[in-house]
Amino acid sequence: MSTAPHPAPLARLTHGERLERMLAPALSGRPLPAAVVHPCDEPSLRGALLAHERGLIEPILVGPAAKIRAVAERHALKLDGIELLDVAHSHAAAEQAVALVRAGRAELLMKGSLHTDELMSAILVRDSGLRTDHRVSHVFYMDVPLYPKPLLLTDAAINIEPTLEDKVHIVQNAIDFAIAMGISTPQVALLAAVETINPKMRATLDAAVLCKMAERGQIRGGVLDGPLAFDNAVSVEAAACKGICSPVAGHADILLAPDIESANMLAKQLEYLADAITAGIVLGARVPIILTSRADSAETRLASTAVAVHYAKQREK
Amino acid sequence: MSTAPHPAPLARLTHGERLERMLAPALSGRPLPAAVVHPCDEPSLRGALLAHERGLIEPILVGPAAKIRAVAERHALKLDGIELLDVAHSHAAAEQAVALVRAGRAELLMKGSLHTDELMSAILVRDSGLRTDHRVSHVFYMDVPLYPKPLLLTDAAINIEPTLEDKVHIVQNAIDFAIAMGISTPQVALLAAVETINPKMRATLDAAVLCKMAERGQIRGGVLDGPLAFDNAVSVEAAACKGICSPVAGHADILLAPDIESANMLAKQLEYLADAITAGIVLGARVPIILTSRADSAETRLASTAVAVHYAKQREK
Repeated sequence: MSTAPHPAPLARLTHGERLERMLAPALSGRPLPAAVVHPCDEPSLRGALLAHERGLIEPILVGPAAKIRAVAERHALKLDGIELLDVAHSHAAAEQAVALVRAGRAELLMKGSLHTDELMSAILVRDSGLRTDHRVSHVFYMDVPLYPKPLLLTDAAINIEPTLEDKVHIVQNAIDFAIAMGISTPQVALLAAVETINPKMRATLDAAVLCKMAERGQIRGGVLDGPLAFDNAVSVEAAACKGICSPVAGHADILLAPDIESANMLAKQLEYLADAITAGIVLGARVPIILTSRADSAETRLASTAVAVHYAKQREK
Repeated sequence: MSTAPHPAPLARLTHGERLERMLAPALSGRPLPAAVVHPCDEPSLRGALLAHERGLIEPILVGPAAKIRAVAERHALKLDGIELLDVAHSHAAAEQAVALVRAGRAELLMKGSLHTDELMSAILVRDSGLRTDHRVSHVFYMDVPLYPKPLLLTDAAINIEPTLEDKVHIVQNAIDFAIAMGISTPQVALLAAVETINPKMRATLDAAVLCKMAERGQIRGGVLDGPLAFDNAVSVEAAACKGICSPVAGHADILLAPDIESANMLAKQLEYLADAITAGIVLGARVPIILTSRADSAETRLASTAVAVHYAKQREK
């Protein structure tokens, strides 16, 4: 492994400045109507209200009204002028939120305090859900202080142990998303533990195959390389050390992790130990889904909402 | 599939001229001592004697002496001055020939009228055989009238259903051989039925992985591309039609077939229906092994011997 340090960016912004930078593109134009599913704890309710305050969304809170009001009261959050759709429990909230999207009343879905599985099963149900002809996958859009540009990571939340075919969809979703976010030809690093092929490590085989699929036009819009170890993906020096000749090495816009464990640990590490601001979005459904962990702060929810709003507006164009 | 015809070479040589062109590089220098294993039918005995006449080899005929002499008499072949090592049967002949190589008395092995399996098992036996740290594989070196340069094909004879790891060795053997034969940076086409990745077709996955292994230096000396359909490998027009952007497409020096069936059918088709002159060599043992089918003519045996002799001399350098 290379120990070459990553070059420090020229200007260091504060955390708050970086958050504003992430919000900025989403602040122009109208707020989007967003169905907020079961916001029955403080961070999820505060996140939605904060996004409303900043003019990002018009929230429709979907959940047990009495419970939501109690949370608001306990934490001095104001619900004046906020639409509240009373349903009995989280399962019904997910179904109702999906119905709002299908009726064209909501242009975003925002996860509150319920299990991801519960939300996703309402989204993925055949016929009455929000499926499209795309596969559903999760992407993190991150501002990392020591990385000179946005860094995207997939899939840390939805696809547990993706097959090669799943990865094709996950990568294509991430590329399309990155392009919508203004990254014209995303550089995609296909991560593994090593940068060489080891027939015993499926991640290295899948990476090689995905590269060829991109060369043959079976994945479009991005430049792929892999397998790459994490250091090779984000550091030109580390890649040079290994003699890796690749347009992606050291310049990755998108990181494809081989499975949910590695993706999730990478994302959490960047957030908790590298001061990254992370925005989590589910792609491939009829509308962007703002998907955050239950432990996520209101700030993370705000950032995620901003990214989803900006993406939804770009898609409309 | 493209129907674009392959461009005709500028000058057409006759079959005999092409044979002489294949023999020429091997004719300079000393003849090499060659153990000829069980040459007990006409083509195998004639092939060895023809190679001797042309100054390519000093044959040591290893087999039942009475039987070999009877074949010679029946077909008016002269054995004067030819060493003959009398052993009881083909199995003993194979063992004895291997012993001659191990003793330094023979620098080539030439298959006569016995099963490939019988010969190869004597060669591959641990400790007393001719194993090296390379895997053993077969390559055809071919002169094809409608192709403007030598065309190599592997593996039509030894590796039945090669795994990815087998293919790494097969490709590397072929590249090293091609370089020794004067092809400085061999272009390797990894054949499949299609040029795109199909996760249900292992040949396409293996091809993609082999390409990445070459990029990462795990296969050296050649330029690889695949999957390529046969037309894309040998025709620039066919490749262009499919929009394949590849240094190899249309210019292949080496074809890697996915398995022994496809390789063998390709080779036989080129020989029988496209007037190719084919030379068959086993690589990866201590010495080159001239491996021809029992149906092969004395001419094919002569061509194979010439290629093996030239290769052995180049390896010495």
